Amino acid sequence: VPFDPAERVTGIHTRDPLKTEIAGDFEVFEVMRHEVTTPRGLVRRCFTLEMRDWVTVVAVTEARRFVLVRQHRHGVDAETLETAGGIVDPGEDPAAAALRELHEETGYVAETAEPLGWVHPNPALQANRCHMFLARGARDTGALACDEHEITAPVILDEAELSAAMIDGQITHALVLVALHRALGSLGRRG
Amino acid sequence: VPFDPAERVTGIHTRDPLKTEIAGDFEVFEVMRHEVTTPRGLVRRCFTLEMRDWVTVVAVTEARRFVLVRQHRHGVDAETLETAGGIVDPGEDPAAAALRELHEETGYVAETAEPLGWVHPNPALQANRCHMFLARGARDTGALACDEHEITAPVILDEAELSAAMIDGQITHALVLVALHRALGSLGRRG
Repeated sequence: VPFDPAERVTGIHTRDPLKTEIAGDFEVFEVMRHEVTTPRGLVRRCFTLEMRDWVTVVAVTEARRFVLVRQHRHGVDAETLETAGGIVDPGEDPAAAALRELHEETGYVAETAEPLGWVHPNPALQANRCHMFLARGARDTGALACDEHEITAPVILDEAELSAAMIDGQITHALVLVALHRALGSLGRRG
Repeated sequence: VPFDPAERVTGIHTRDPLKTEIAGDFEVFEVMRHEVTTPRGLVRRCFTLEMRDWVTVVAVTEARRFVLVRQHRHGVDAETLETAGGIVDPGEDPAAAALRELHEETGYVAETAEPLGWVHPNPALQANRCHMFLARGARDTGALACDEHEITAPVILDEAELSAAMIDGQITHALVLVALHRALGSLGRRG
């Protein structure tokens, strides 16, 4: 293994826990201010984002069609095409969160969510993880289970349409793209 | 094309530009507060993150070895293994930013950066883009060109080591994983 984060070859950046504080609370995230001493002894201030973990789930039907969701996203102030996903509730199992979000956002349900690992959305600014899942045998209940003000719509794609959407700009969300790469690999290997 | 963001099938969320304001300034990002009217008429507050665009670059030597970087990241307060990358300076061309970051963080240089497209790091919270590049023929100058307090170290992997690092938890950064998937696809197709 060429990389071991415990080695810290680039030197220790010491974060003073007594000088970590909330710089701002913005409902779905907090901004934290830290004081850090660099390997060469300079004291610097840095800001990080404190957020709960996220999930995203690649749902596929028995007929091998992929269940995605279109929804308005405030960050880009536009509609996006994504896999179902969202924030893991406190104490919630990430796999359960994935199946809950799938039902809420698309109206599809599945029995199990197989783990596809997790990633850091952005280790430069935030420590939270996005847990990724594959839900096989997804089936339509015909009704979304979402908050009435969070309007989402399922989008059903076959594998060729999905592969095209991953490279032609229809799907732009980095976390979704990682999950789709892993899901397609998993489906390809194990049928 | 099954998805066209201009269709807005999930309903129009109207953002009032007179009610968008800076809620906090944290050096490398700002938090913006918006007032939004949902498709069902509810007025809601939402927060977004304003950041500059980012770049990441997959550098490969003539001997087909991959040039990555280990560095301390404040978000996770640990060292990470990533492709070289960072923030695009105001007015800077993203491809030039990619080659600049490669030199600064690894000491390697390359003549050109081929575009691998861009992604949204997180469309739920931020509108910025991460532009991804492939730099072939990278060569070692033997000296990093970075800020003396930003200590980084090049890590050179062959393709088997890189593929393993993408799935075994050595590389956890979602944007880096998307860039590597695209770069490996591009190298596989065009030699």
